[in-house]
Amino acid sequence: MKLNRIDLSKSLDKQTYKTLHSGLAQKLGELQRRAREAGVPVVIVFEGWDAAGKGTLINKLILALDPRGFNVHPTNPPTEEERLRPFLWRFWTRTPARGRIAVFDRSWYGRVLVERVDKVVSREDWQAAYEDIDSFERQLAHDGGVIIKFFLHISRKEQKKRFKKLLGNPATEWKVSKEDWRHHKQYPKYAKAVEEMIDRTSPDWAPWTVIEAHDERFATVKMMKTAIAAIERRLTRAGPAAAVTLRPSRIRSSMLDRADLSLSLNRAEYENRIDDLQKRMRDVEHELYRKRIPLVILFEGWDAAGKGGNIRRLVSHLDPRGYEVVPIIAPNDVEKAHHYLWRFWNPFPKAGHIAVFDRSWYGRVMVERVEKFCAEAEWKRAYREINEMEQQWVRFGAILVKFWLHIDKETQLARFTDRQNTPYKKWKITDEDWRNREKWGPYKAAVDEMLARTSTACAPWTIVEANCKLHARVKALTTVIEAAEKRLSD
Amino acid sequence: MKLNRIDLSKSLDKQTYKTLHSGLAQKLGELQRRAREAGVPVVIVFEGWDAAGKGTLINKLILALDPRGFNVHPTNPPTEEERLRPFLWRFWTRTPARGRIAVFDRSWYGRVLVERVDKVVSREDWQAAYEDIDSFERQLAHDGGVIIKFFLHISRKEQKKRFKKLLGNPATEWKVSKEDWRHHKQYPKYAKAVEEMIDRTSPDWAPWTVIEAHDERFATVKMMKTAIAAIERRLTRAGPAAAVTLRPSRIRSSMLDRADLSLSLNRAEYENRIDDLQKRMRDVEHELYRKRIPLVILFEGWDAAGKGGNIRRLVSHLDPRGYEVVPIIAPNDVEKAHHYLWRFWNPFPKAGHIAVFDRSWYGRVMVERVEKFCAEAEWKRAYREINEMEQQWVRFGAILVKFWLHIDKETQLARFTDRQNTPYKKWKITDEDWRNREKWGPYKAAVDEMLARTSTACAPWTIVEANCKLHARVKALTTVIEAAEKRLSD
Repeated sequence: MKLNRIDLSKSLDKQTYKTLHSGLAQKLGELQRRAREAGVPVVIVFEGWDAAGKGTLINKLILALDPRGFNVHPTNPPTEEERLRPFLWRFWTRTPARGRIAVFDRSWYGRVLVERVDKVVSREDWQAAYEDIDSFERQLAHDGGVIIKFFLHISRKEQKKRFKKLLGNPATEWKVSKEDWRHHKQYPKYAKAVEEMIDRTSPDWAPWTVIEAHDERFATVKMMKTAIAAIERRLTRAGPAAAVTLRPSRIRSSMLDRADLSLSLNRAEYENRIDDLQKRMRDVEHELYRKRIPLVILFEGWDAAGKGGNIRRLVSHLDPRGYEVVPIIAPNDVEKAHHYLWRFWNPFPKAGHIAVFDRSWYGRVMVERVEKFCAEAEWKRAYREINEMEQQWVRFGAILVKFWLHIDKETQLARFTDRQNTPYKKWKITDEDWRNREKWGPYKAAVDEMLARTSTACAPWTIVEANCKLHARVKALTTVIEAAEKRLSD
Repeated sequence: MKLNRIDLSKSLDKQTYKTLHSGLAQKLGELQRRAREAGVPVVIVFEGWDAAGKGTLINKLILALDPRGFNVHPTNPPTEEERLRPFLWRFWTRTPARGRIAVFDRSWYGRVLVERVDKVVSREDWQAAYEDIDSFERQLAHDGGVIIKFFLHISRKEQKKRFKKLLGNPATEWKVSKEDWRHHKQYPKYAKAVEEMIDRTSPDWAPWTVIEAHDERFATVKMMKTAIAAIERRLTRAGPAAAVTLRPSRIRSSMLDRADLSLSLNRAEYENRIDDLQKRMRDVEHELYRKRIPLVILFEGWDAAGKGGNIRRLVSHLDPRGYEVVPIIAPNDVEKAHHYLWRFWNPFPKAGHIAVFDRSWYGRVMVERVEKFCAEAEWKRAYREINEMEQQWVRFGAILVKFWLHIDKETQLARFTDRQNTPYKKWKITDEDWRNREKWGPYKAAVDEMLARTSTACAPWTIVEANCKLHARVKALTTVIEAAEKRLSD
């Protein structure tokens, strides 16, 4: 891809434009309605040179759309809230619901353009960003989304002309900053970054379109035609955008079977140790805050394995300003209308804070798999998607601790019965718990595969033997503290 | 209210505490479940001296709760995003959904405490805040919410002792800042502000409870008992918290009847003026941005009065980074679970930005009234609630322009028929539109009352005669531009 080989002289006369435009606008409106009915989310990215006309073109686009169905997201330098999260966080949380259109005025590509060239981020960071972007767009496309990316191209000479015109008008002179001029001087350097970006991030499901943007009319028509073609292509296909290779589930060994469920602790020893651990945990909270390290802890496990009690012991001495327990229940209708990982990106803790997930994104490969709430292709590709998400979090600097609270079937029965027979515990047990218990076998197969496929170097699982609640609490606390102290001493 | 008359020597021994605490914790958990079933939102505010133990007490509270049902909101100095909105914005957007509990660690009272004493805001601002807080809490209580407010009280001597203890531990010394010491020195001045706050903001539906906080056990028990009593009191009542005085709807004159629907503009004159107006509108957008003035425009009007087309002409030359069209449709389930004004607080534009509402909060006193989606008491008190909200926005500095697009019944029929008969317009007309048309009379009565009750000095309605679409577009644009230019020249 060579920007200087692009013919920038293309233009359209007013009459041709007028005729073309009204037809294209009508077509776009119609496709928007069809995409809404089909529940297809559409992402449209506008990148381009300063003063290339992104604002104007975006307005041309959205004037053709029903405002009930889209959002425009201007991408400014990240706010403090945003800097304290992984770089894709602010884009993940803004991905469109099914049937909606999200227009990004600049985007995640800032990482490999302005932030790269201006050396805001290290080489390592922007190289990693290419990987993150690849998985981000692939995941959205797999989920059925359309991704349309425009780069608005003008020459260096044209840019200078436009800057001067803006400076000539008192109402617009503030729009040209020193930084814009600095970027203008570095045009050739930027051009190289743009070319590399286009070459490296044009997969079938999210190709770039370079728009020759000297002539506004030509640019508008090309932009609209491209968007129409992309949405139409998606709507004529039945399934999601990209196929996924399904590997057979051949899990040879079971981490669960190897767990020693006889491990236990007596009350005296427990009382002896728990208080000290809780105080250390409080110190850990303070230290993480001071060093701005985010900590994500998740608890999965059999019903009645003791997740709630375990979490309470973990946080009992903490400052509530520094941690949040995020209980995961069935998704509400807003959550259902998004990619399944969307609702887990949202509560990612600010750097220095702690998030404790009571159940998690692993529901996708357990309950949703076993109860068939999602298709086989969906849960099968989820392993990779989850690993990618966790890798991004860890790369950002997060500590990730994942617990599977393990008990045997007999212990579960005893606890269910106890709940049933104790008046103030009765609300804790439902018919659903009994139904799930009957599917112990299928659940165990799902858990075994999950543990095998998602115990990665950067985010390993810890099996907590939980037949003895006291042992489980001490082990979970100890594991978290050790993981944190190890990082803190790095 | 005199803080120095409070007996701070109260305490509880360990054994008494242990016995009391487990019973209270169980009771709180039970009440949380009952509040969830009853759909009662609960707001709990913790204010108090630095080092009075807010964090510890909040943790004691939430450890007794099911984490699936609450959120803790730490109140830090406002972020930039927050400073660019009215001061209650960040609290309104965090009000709990029905059945949930929101715990605020510090709160909106910062305005009349630290921000007042430290002179972060003007006297005028914190005096106005008292009014805003009054209406905020009253609105939540009317909506069925419980509001529990704690002030954690310790003496100046005790505070000094605690600061020194924190400083003595390397893990906690960072918690005592210079500012804390400065506040400590100004303790008497703060005490006066606290006393005034408690005296002025203790209505029946949101009383303050001062917690003697020298002894953590005593404080914990008093806090839990108070919360339990408040939630229990609410649950034993059937209706919402506070009664509302219903004034009879006696609207003598109709703004609608006085509108001259014969006003029109020919195409040539329209073409002649529209372009210039749109360019002025673009300059207005720039100037508002430079001066950080938020502009809120709302369009209400009969079906087919031309809201969509009007909005498109208004924004067609604008930079999409500076404006947003907010279309209001039926609330989703998350929105339904909140106070009806919650979803309108959320999209309040950042200072310097423009929000155009296509339909608005006035749905409460129109469609919800006529179709009986809400109770009579609800829409009747909505006039005041809406006026209060708009007043807060205007006081913050917002320009508020409210349009009623008015057409007569014949014009509506002609437009409905045209939509029905034109293939590419057909999607715009539904059975519901025809049904609404049959209720023209009841809707007109509702509109007349709405216009009469909510045309306030700070937020008047403008009737746009819209039988002629060209006239309507020019009038709306002109009205917005004049309102903005008037403010910009102030």
